[in-house]
Amino acid sequence: MIDPMDVLWILAHPEPRSLNGHLATEGQRALRAGGHRVEESNLYAMNWNPVVDTAGYAHPSAERFQVAAAAKRAHESGAVSADIRAEQEKIERADTIVIQFPMWWFGMPAILKGWFDRVWHQGFAYGLRGPNGEWIGYGDGFLAGKRAMAVVTMGGPGWLFGERGIHGAVDDLLFPLQHGTLFYAGAEVLPPVLVSGADRFTPEEGEAAAEQLRGRLLAIPTTEPIAFRTQNGGDYGQDLVLRPDIAPGLAGLRAHVA
Amino acid sequence: MIDPMDVLWILAHPEPRSLNGHLATEGQRALRAGGHRVEESNLYAMNWNPVVDTAGYAHPSAERFQVAAAAKRAHESGAVSADIRAEQEKIERADTIVIQFPMWWFGMPAILKGWFDRVWHQGFAYGLRGPNGEWIGYGDGFLAGKRAMAVVTMGGPGWLFGERGIHGAVDDLLFPLQHGTLFYAGAEVLPPVLVSGADRFTPEEGEAAAEQLRGRLLAIPTTEPIAFRTQNGGDYGQDLVLRPDIAPGLAGLRAHVA
Repeated sequence: MIDPMDVLWILAHPEPRSLNGHLATEGQRALRAGGHRVEESNLYAMNWNPVVDTAGYAHPSAERFQVAAAAKRAHESGAVSADIRAEQEKIERADTIVIQFPMWWFGMPAILKGWFDRVWHQGFAYGLRGPNGEWIGYGDGFLAGKRAMAVVTMGGPGWLFGERGIHGAVDDLLFPLQHGTLFYAGAEVLPPVLVSGADRFTPEEGEAAAEQLRGRLLAIPTTEPIAFRTQNGGDYGQDLVLRPDIAPGLAGLRAHVA
Repeated sequence: MIDPMDVLWILAHPEPRSLNGHLATEGQRALRAGGHRVEESNLYAMNWNPVVDTAGYAHPSAERFQVAAAAKRAHESGAVSADIRAEQEKIERADTIVIQFPMWWFGMPAILKGWFDRVWHQGFAYGLRGPNGEWIGYGDGFLAGKRAMAVVTMGGPGWLFGERGIHGAVDDLLFPLQHGTLFYAGAEVLPPVLVSGADRFTPEEGEAAAEQLRGRLLAIPTTEPIAFRTQNGGDYGQDLVLRPDIAPGLAGLRAHVA
């Protein structure tokens, strides 16, 4: 018997009649049929504003706008704009976050990037909150205890995103999201659901992708997260650089996975 | 005697009174003083729309929206929206593109990501145009002959973005932009100008950063580009995977730099 999950599903695709639309519908249906609760932020349908601006944090335009500090102040005084606050309340209600998007220019569509830019701000997702008022992050952030999983469609064939494929290995391309954003804020990050060849999908391939997705979604409670190294787990020194005896000789993004 | 450059400067920062605002002003001033021409797209000042939508490509909303195909059709029929077309004309006039932004969540601010999402579309930046109608890219794209350079501010200290720093090595974090976007479209990509510690900048540090930037800008014509491997240079097989004898045993993003 698995406890029901409270899933927040972030979707960033302009076309409901797309493969992404199909996968979102089928994935959410499978979760609900499995007894889980799903709340959705369909960013295109919501006409989400992805641009960080003074209005989001009630910052007076006469004063110099320092984004992180302004967001933190607005957070503390309850002045964050209603659209941002509504997303944060969804995050607070969820124990599991699914982030679904088509890979555009090897990253998130702007509407989704700006969801993180605006919602995931200092004071809400990260900041000072250690036992001695110290900065926390990378496994110890404010969203600790939640799980997150990316669902990503890619236009080209999968081998182009393989270990030596010309586009670069997909795990490395997703590092800024999975490590730098989700794990930074404390979430356990599950291996992504990857759907390649999305440009030319037959209905049968779409159904196979949906079947893979359903299986991964229902297995979230028992799936092992990516073993990113935590900030305070002993692998990094005081300077937050990997200690010499950890993954010796290894450089680049892979060094940050145990 | 160096030929004058035609520089397009893309800026993505909400606050003119910021370090980024200072660097943009000083950098452009230095270029003009050096006899070069500068055109600017200040995305915040322009109120740039970063969200890919049907309106940008005059796509009928009753029909399923397949982004790349719709953009290509609009490009061929001259139906791309005026705001996108204006940016493309700036790109066409330029031989050098500077892309300046603060690193937010280890990537571009949404307003800039969406500049690429909307402007850098199939038919304009990449597509079918080889001698036998084949797909071109990675060194052979439509923007071949232009140079591009990123100017990036980062909030934390530089060593956090070093080879073993906790945020991940900055060259890897910039790979989606520098390799997957700029080099994909054919541009020669110069090593980025990196300004770390931007959260706590003194006027003296700002001046030092401006001085570094001025030097790098004026040296663009004689700076060696990053040695990304070209698609058709022989390092990749027909499947666009690195040949076994190229960088043997190496995997991940670094394998794509000669």
